[in-house]
Amino acid sequence: MERRNTDIWFTEYQTKHLRLGLSIKSVLANIQTPYQHLLVVDTDQYGRLMALDGAIQLTESDEFTYHEMLAHVALTSHPAPRRILIVGGGDGGTAREAVKHETVEEVVLVDIDQEVINASKQFFPSLSSGLEDPKVNVLVMDALEYIRGKSGKFDVVIVDSTDPVDFAEGLFREPFYRDVFRALNEGGSLVAQTESPFSDPDILTGAVSEMEKVFPIVKVFWGAMPTYPTGMWTYTIGSKVHEPGEPRGQIPPETRYYSEEIHRAAFVLPPFLEEILQGRDR
Amino acid sequence: MERRNTDIWFTEYQTKHLRLGLSIKSVLANIQTPYQHLLVVDTDQYGRLMALDGAIQLTESDEFTYHEMLAHVALTSHPAPRRILIVGGGDGGTAREAVKHETVEEVVLVDIDQEVINASKQFFPSLSSGLEDPKVNVLVMDALEYIRGKSGKFDVVIVDSTDPVDFAEGLFREPFYRDVFRALNEGGSLVAQTESPFSDPDILTGAVSEMEKVFPIVKVFWGAMPTYPTGMWTYTIGSKVHEPGEPRGQIPPETRYYSEEIHRAAFVLPPFLEEILQGRDR
Repeated sequence: MERRNTDIWFTEYQTKHLRLGLSIKSVLANIQTPYQHLLVVDTDQYGRLMALDGAIQLTESDEFTYHEMLAHVALTSHPAPRRILIVGGGDGGTAREAVKHETVEEVVLVDIDQEVINASKQFFPSLSSGLEDPKVNVLVMDALEYIRGKSGKFDVVIVDSTDPVDFAEGLFREPFYRDVFRALNEGGSLVAQTESPFSDPDILTGAVSEMEKVFPIVKVFWGAMPTYPTGMWTYTIGSKVHEPGEPRGQIPPETRYYSEEIHRAAFVLPPFLEEILQGRDR
Repeated sequence: MERRNTDIWFTEYQTKHLRLGLSIKSVLANIQTPYQHLLVVDTDQYGRLMALDGAIQLTESDEFTYHEMLAHVALTSHPAPRRILIVGGGDGGTAREAVKHETVEEVVLVDIDQEVINASKQFFPSLSSGLEDPKVNVLVMDALEYIRGKSGKFDVVIVDSTDPVDFAEGLFREPFYRDVFRALNEGGSLVAQTESPFSDPDILTGAVSEMEKVFPIVKVFWGAMPTYPTGMWTYTIGSKVHEPGEPRGQIPPETRYYSEEIHRAAFVLPPFLEEILQGRDR
């Protein structure tokens, strides 16, 4: 008789027809929060991983590419960002990056789900450190509600959201972008993660179209992100005044993906992506 | 009793701990050639797919990113490439891109495996069209043997190889690079695919180090490639004279990933990748 083997796999269904598998050592959390399903596993390939409603949010090994690109392109496009709003981002990774900018005085982080914050503090100290920074003020509530009625308060709003389903769907739509526009001061801008052009081009073009109804300048940029579907991830900036392709603020220290040169290069889109964007509703 | 479901999945083990799954409609070829295992399946997500020895070589939907970046960066770095050697690339995708350059007079394609060529002609007409071009001369033999003793014959040598295992391993080593150097004329250059910095940094740094023993100018560039491990793919150029970061030849028409601006942007490496390269043996 042959010796038997066992292994344990975490599987993400990135689309109905595409899945990513990661062998795991253990399941650290597997709970239903009031808002979503939260899973934390320890993978062999990428270290600890958090998934929400079945979608990988981060792994210890590659989260730096996403969090750096989401935070630093918008923050460095602004000459001196002082007050920042992070919508979602309860893991703390984006806040950790935001406070690297010396001009930043206050970061308000609004996440709807206390359990995400708790899980990050328990299992991802290298991310949740961002939540402990004295400049960071964490609010547990619906960001759609928080932002309504705010006026001229922020320099940069960063939407660090899950995919646009259920409660996160509104974060990809005009009414929210209009509220964000009002909440921004004169030189303000919004940045959001806007999915992969290979697997979800409609979400990207939808977000861009909705943002263009509100912001005079809208630009898409991209970066590598291994554990997100297809590994090619887009981000979209809506800006009132500042052209986002050019870094003008201080370049943050201690980055592993972002640099001044990467900032500029990230706005160079392959022709197929330009075509996807040109084909959107306008 | 509940209604049962079935589905069929192709699974690639990208590492021991990481796998990519694609649901498939059918298996079109599943054979052992004299050199490797060859699989062709029809996937729901990406169209037809070819795998060699378990590694995805191409899918109909995303092969353009790989073949364009492999061919056009090196070819456009040369002011007027006329004679090209493709090592491997029996599917024809790289040849299809190479003949887009008007200056190109002859493409010699040397692949060891006739079955790869046959499978491409049967199942991937949009790639094998590259093999039918009158400028393309296909030789079925070991490229290591072909190149030995050639002198001053080619402007650009493109290594479109499988991963460096078994018969392909020699394609990542100094003796082969030395033969290529001799086979190139004065302004010549070599380009090779050199794997992902996330999943196989050692292959990348190994190839760069070996190339640096032979070529005075060695540069790494990168691009997105969804169905290759981690989606972030590197390529390395060894050049005798021309700085590869700057396009100087004619920009090829009808590209979907490559452009003059992407050419320059592809040489901008994230700091973590610069660090990997700085840590290599020298």
